[in-house]
Amino acid sequence: VINAEKSEFNEDQAACCEISIRRREPGLEEDEEWLILCSTQFLTGYYWALFDGHGGPEAAIIASNYLHYCIKQKLEEVAGSITEARPPMHLSGRCVCDSDPQFVEEKHIHAEDLVVGALENAFQECDEVIGQEMEATKQTGGCTALAALYFQGKLYVANAGDSRAILVLKDNVVPMSCEFTPETERQRIQHLAFLFPKLLDGEFTRFEFPRRLKGDDVGQKVLYRDYFMEGWGYKTVEKADLKYPLVHGHGKQARLLGTLAVSRGLGDHQLKKKKKNIEVKPFLSCIPKKKKGTWELQGVNVFDFALHDIKEDDVLIMGTDGLWDVLSNKEVAHVVRSFLAENRTDPHRFSELAKCLVCRARGKQSEKKKMLDDSHEASYDDKKKKIIPLHNRDED
Amino acid sequence: VINAEKSEFNEDQAACCEISIRRREPGLEEDEEWLILCSTQFLTGYYWALFDGHGGPEAAIIASNYLHYCIKQKLEEVAGSITEARPPMHLSGRCVCDSDPQFVEEKHIHAEDLVVGALENAFQECDEVIGQEMEATKQTGGCTALAALYFQGKLYVANAGDSRAILVLKDNVVPMSCEFTPETERQRIQHLAFLFPKLLDGEFTRFEFPRRLKGDDVGQKVLYRDYFMEGWGYKTVEKADLKYPLVHGHGKQARLLGTLAVSRGLGDHQLKKKKKNIEVKPFLSCIPKKKKGTWELQGVNVFDFALHDIKEDDVLIMGTDGLWDVLSNKEVAHVVRSFLAENRTDPHRFSELAKCLVCRARGKQSEKKKMLDDSHEASYDDKKKKIIPLHNRDED
Repeated sequence: VINAEKSEFNEDQAACCEISIRRREPGLEEDEEWLILCSTQFLTGYYWALFDGHGGPEAAIIASNYLHYCIKQKLEEVAGSITEARPPMHLSGRCVCDSDPQFVEEKHIHAEDLVVGALENAFQECDEVIGQEMEATKQTGGCTALAALYFQGKLYVANAGDSRAILVLKDNVVPMSCEFTPETERQRIQHLAFLFPKLLDGEFTRFEFPRRLKGDDVGQKVLYRDYFMEGWGYKTVEKADLKYPLVHGHGKQARLLGTLAVSRGLGDHQLKKKKKNIEVKPFLSCIPKKKKGTWELQGVNVFDFALHDIKEDDVLIMGTDGLWDVLSNKEVAHVVRSFLAENRTDPHRFSELAKCLVCRARGKQSEKKKMLDDSHEASYDDKKKKIIPLHNRDED
Repeated sequence: VINAEKSEFNEDQAACCEISIRRREPGLEEDEEWLILCSTQFLTGYYWALFDGHGGPEAAIIASNYLHYCIKQKLEEVAGSITEARPPMHLSGRCVCDSDPQFVEEKHIHAEDLVVGALENAFQECDEVIGQEMEATKQTGGCTALAALYFQGKLYVANAGDSRAILVLKDNVVPMSCEFTPETERQRIQHLAFLFPKLLDGEFTRFEFPRRLKGDDVGQKVLYRDYFMEGWGYKTVEKADLKYPLVHGHGKQARLLGTLAVSRGLGDHQLKKKKKNIEVKPFLSCIPKKKKGTWELQGVNVFDFALHDIKEDDVLIMGTDGLWDVLSNKEVAHVVRSFLAENRTDPHRFSELAKCLVCRARGKQSEKKKMLDDSHEASYDDKKKKIIPLHNRDED
């Protein structure tokens, strides 16, 4: 973890732990205590997560202490069915209707879907807890959340925010998440403002323009997009269009309500647009979402180890935006592969690799600015990354 | 067009025409009449569309007579900029701010985006017109809309509904649209019901279950999904969960409010759930949407002829659900390729191919049921398809 010295505390937080899930034989009644004890099994999962805080480190700290607990709890709630390839319609295993198994089959529901559902519910519960905790202690702020869970032979990656996870395999780089920013989620955000115009309190315009408009533009036909448009059109500018845009700027400068650079994450329940009474939270989502453009139906990306031949140097790389702002997936993969090839015998080579990547992204101190080796400007953001070797994972 | 004899009139309609767009030199004032006349150019586009009606053929008939006019109109509105690789910020071409071209570049806005925007706006306008027309004539019903536009060297496909367009190329089949049904748009529909519970008037549940629940399920933990879930969880069933589900059934049987099998389309402004006062229209969208799972940002799929070497037998196939219910993309491609190879010299081979595909999907009259060659049950739905050769397209 690198503190960019933007604030006293590092706003990036991390967590990793083993998650042990208690699983009872389904169908036992509460009073069969002895049988319950005998039949209890434990399923083990492994968890890694990154949280990039904003407006203070508090939300990231709570999330790093609490999200794995929510995940454990949500997995335990469905644990009775999670080892079945085809989960039963009723958690009790009881068949109310003879054709229930057929209904479950028709809907293509697999054990994997229960893990995905548990992760989605865990993010939502963690967000609620952060909201209560922050209100009680009169603190503010929020954080992004990127969580990876290895469970029953599969790797699940859930993302709410602009961190990123990729698998660097021997011959392949597999993106496991997608960034959610006001720019990538423009249509969802604009649509909400269309449905509930009061959320903007007359202070913002929901339309997107290439730049903020000014007096000279009034009466002119100017490029614009509304919530339902992925293409562009021309709109005759009215005075109301001169208001500040709901989503403004592009790339790293894109902002929601002129405030936040992310559109998904945990916390921010109290965040209001400065000096206005406009709440930001209704436009945020705490739900992890799938990588845009995949055909899979999961809200969480799943990598099945059984379908891949994992090599010794294959790793999962998780990094907050501070890393990806300055290095592309390809550049990171290159650093990873060459570093691991050169350091075959070092027992700490994975943590050394993490340090190496931090240094690459941080750049060298060159005159006044931090410069990367290739003279690009380095990232001034806090950085946090994790390298997780995939091979022999049961011995980790 | 095949009428399945489900109703007196064929509910499937089609349209095709040349679209001629008047384009003036930008920057001319209204009073420079002589200059305007001299500088007017015409840009030509080609348009093909299919409309699958429900609840009567009226909406499909209006759409087949009107959508191309809306498209022409919307294209003319932006015609001043549409031939520029990089459209100007102001339609007038006037530069209000020196860095305007840079803002447009930063947003990656191309001429293509104006065509996409025009198609999106045209669908919306056509939907409004249908609503007014149907109300004035006290008619009801709606239709899906699949439109293809060849314009300035590119093919644009816009889809609202469950029709499908594919390109059958020599070595490749390229899906150009994606079906929108209550099942594929479950999360959008459930989310709307979450935001506006009154839309369900206490008569429906927004939760999805593998089957409709009954009294015996109350108190049990049963598989369910809410709007934010792509995975599944277990929910303790309450009495309210026994209501009819907002989205119910799967595959071809999936229904919205127990009524409609599509979630996008034109019309249906007056459609209410029978005997209830629940409107269906708020859950429908008239906006064409991109193929799920593509990385492109268009709401309309774009195929650039300049990037492909088009062969003589390459065609665009457009079909309503009646075709795709019984034949896969691969099967259609096989029929297309072998038919065209066997009928090289027939000047009517493309219309003959369309007939051949209709017969394949319609099946042979075999005892009581219509059977396909390979003994699968044939489609009883109305069928409409179009075969559009891609080669030498300027001579069409």
